[in-house]
Amino acid sequence: MRAEEITGRIAEDLETLKQFTATPGNGCTRLPFTKEAREAVNFLKKTMEEIGLDVREDAAGNVIGILKGENPELPCVMMGSHYDSVVNGGDYDGIAGVVSAIEVARQLKLKGTKLKRNFVVVGFCDEEGMRFGTGYFGSGAIMGNRDAQYCKRFKDKDGISIYDAMKSYGLDPEKVTEAKWPKGSIGNFLELHIEQGPVLDTENIEIGLVDCIVGIQRYMVTVLGRADHAGTTPMNMRMDAVDAATKVISKIPDWAREKADGTVATTGYINTIPGGMNIVAEKVEFTVDIRSRNNDNINDIANRIRAALDREVKAMGGSYTIDTKLVITPVNLSEEMLKIMEESCKLHKFTYKYLPSGAGHDALEIGQVLPTVMLFVPSKDGRSHCPVEFTKYSEFAKATMIMTELAEKLVAQ
Amino acid sequence: MRAEEITGRIAEDLETLKQFTATPGNGCTRLPFTKEAREAVNFLKKTMEEIGLDVREDAAGNVIGILKGENPELPCVMMGSHYDSVVNGGDYDGIAGVVSAIEVARQLKLKGTKLKRNFVVVGFCDEEGMRFGTGYFGSGAIMGNRDAQYCKRFKDKDGISIYDAMKSYGLDPEKVTEAKWPKGSIGNFLELHIEQGPVLDTENIEIGLVDCIVGIQRYMVTVLGRADHAGTTPMNMRMDAVDAATKVISKIPDWAREKADGTVATTGYINTIPGGMNIVAEKVEFTVDIRSRNNDNINDIANRIRAALDREVKAMGGSYTIDTKLVITPVNLSEEMLKIMEESCKLHKFTYKYLPSGAGHDALEIGQVLPTVMLFVPSKDGRSHCPVEFTKYSEFAKATMIMTELAEKLVAQ
Repeated sequence: MRAEEITGRIAEDLETLKQFTATPGNGCTRLPFTKEAREAVNFLKKTMEEIGLDVREDAAGNVIGILKGENPELPCVMMGSHYDSVVNGGDYDGIAGVVSAIEVARQLKLKGTKLKRNFVVVGFCDEEGMRFGTGYFGSGAIMGNRDAQYCKRFKDKDGISIYDAMKSYGLDPEKVTEAKWPKGSIGNFLELHIEQGPVLDTENIEIGLVDCIVGIQRYMVTVLGRADHAGTTPMNMRMDAVDAATKVISKIPDWAREKADGTVATTGYINTIPGGMNIVAEKVEFTVDIRSRNNDNINDIANRIRAALDREVKAMGGSYTIDTKLVITPVNLSEEMLKIMEESCKLHKFTYKYLPSGAGHDALEIGQVLPTVMLFVPSKDGRSHCPVEFTKYSEFAKATMIMTELAEKLVAQ
Repeated sequence: MRAEEITGRIAEDLETLKQFTATPGNGCTRLPFTKEAREAVNFLKKTMEEIGLDVREDAAGNVIGILKGENPELPCVMMGSHYDSVVNGGDYDGIAGVVSAIEVARQLKLKGTKLKRNFVVVGFCDEEGMRFGTGYFGSGAIMGNRDAQYCKRFKDKDGISIYDAMKSYGLDPEKVTEAKWPKGSIGNFLELHIEQGPVLDTENIEIGLVDCIVGIQRYMVTVLGRADHAGTTPMNMRMDAVDAATKVISKIPDWAREKADGTVATTGYINTIPGGMNIVAEKVEFTVDIRSRNNDNINDIANRIRAALDREVKAMGGSYTIDTKLVITPVNLSEEMLKIMEESCKLHKFTYKYLPSGAGHDALEIGQVLPTVMLFVPSKDGRSHCPVEFTKYSEFAKATMIMTELAEKLVAQ
């Protein structure tokens, strides 16, 4: 296979797909069950049909193309990513992984690879969860975790449920459970994705071998003090929620840095109530997002936050509550498949690095159950979910070559 | 004079005045140049006329009652406070000081006190600044600091300027400069006010002798970092504005406590931008309000904040700006008049305490130039600017007795 040809085909596909946006000139906005989603799905189907795949759209809006192997009853090798985007997002997040999977299928076909098992290309529907405040809709459906009840529960900002959006789009939400793949039918899952972080770009590395998807714990903390006049209330008579809360928040990043193993902790939101310049804050709400490949580190930081809140809030004289928003344990990806990709990288003299994925992906949904691997390509300046998101087509081509060689080995087994 | 009679009259006047609110049943809302302000002014005029004062409303909406002395050309003794309130405020903030001044005039009259100079009762217009985002409108006008230009500059939330509001109210804003009192025409200014803080109530003290009005410095600080994905950006590649900002904010109250002289410092407002749970904050805006009787302490804390911002923002890699919103130097009140009041307290066996005023008052506007004194009465639980604001009528009566004795001495000089 010639790298230039792969680069060219990936470029053509991505250049076509980037037109399917609701915000032309201002990044990619391709929400699930919209006109733009339909246009992208139609293009993906046509492209997959052209290279001879068996193509269908499933009950959850996933687009699926199968390159038949000799023994279709064997667990298949599945590769893909999602075709939806956030609002004013980039042209590569998700969709590049679908285009890469199509190119892998094309390579297998072109090379005349003898497939013992099916190679399945998937474009997942609604990974981002942007429209309905959810996520992993299509990959969750394939794993059997979505039903009509779920579709009725979540609504977009206009009050339209997933259920109604699916109906308008031409899908039957009552049949969403039919998107489930039977146990044992998927042998491996492969996903190529942009890094969405700065590590590969900063260190000038071509291929990121993702060895785990980090665990996440998210909390909304509310510290309660008492509103007082900022001029007339002596320091020793106050219950200043800002005083107590910032004494905790200011330490959280240090605790993550101490771990020195890639553990991250973030307070992205702080709200002061009533928020007057001359009023001692009665209430402070703040978020905590902790991620690590090591679940003990996440628990340790969460415990330190609780201990610090106990101490500072007691000193202040108020109270606090912690609302748990999300708990996901880390997922280790397949060492065996990573090893195969590492050998390919060495063969091609591609620079590579093992790193964790700090963001969730369809591979997180699937990797909880099945042998899964991810490969990252560099994101310029680590920027993502914005119009300036950028990766060179030649970088996608290199990664696609590595994925192709992995797929060749897997389908031959 | 009998305390019960004074208590009774103050109670009657305040009970009447509390009806002039735009939010009956939910505290006092008496904004300047409104129907409620007009009703209060009419009642104050009527009450002052009944005890024989020369009554007029000046060009700034202040209501003025003069008890003539033998030599009206001598600098007068002026006493008063404001008749406006905040939205859903209490029934005593401001207006109690006007009612007390009227009672002092009544006492002087009843006792047949021989006045060498005029005793002037004032109900100031718009001290709170709630409607137009300003403050000290009436007292500023009396000091010669308000003109038509000023009235045109400030508007309420409906876009109505002070200028237009005055015209609708029946005042001519072009003549607002006429409210100025000539230099040398006011000899002393006296103000009774509720404490609006918890000190007297907590320590069970009847009279607060205000020896200074604290200086204030207010800043809006903006810390600039960079927005990044909270999952995919390693700790050492972040420019986390929350990390840098909270490391500064968390120390500010400690620096005030260290002074141990009543210095207070408050961050009442923090805003994180974009404010996403999973986004490293690009920007944090926060306020600082520092108050002290000792201007050096205010400057020291402001300097420490700048030094800490230099250090933390440099460590983070971003930048910051500081926008100065307010700088007021402390005002020392008249030792001579305080001494007279202290003697009166001893005579009546009233418990008293010297304390600073942490809030601004009309006495701050006037005290910058003229010999001024303030007297505080206890605020239950320190609550103010809310419907539960409470002081016993008998407390107002005690303070009014002290003020009467001071006035008697001053008008006789």
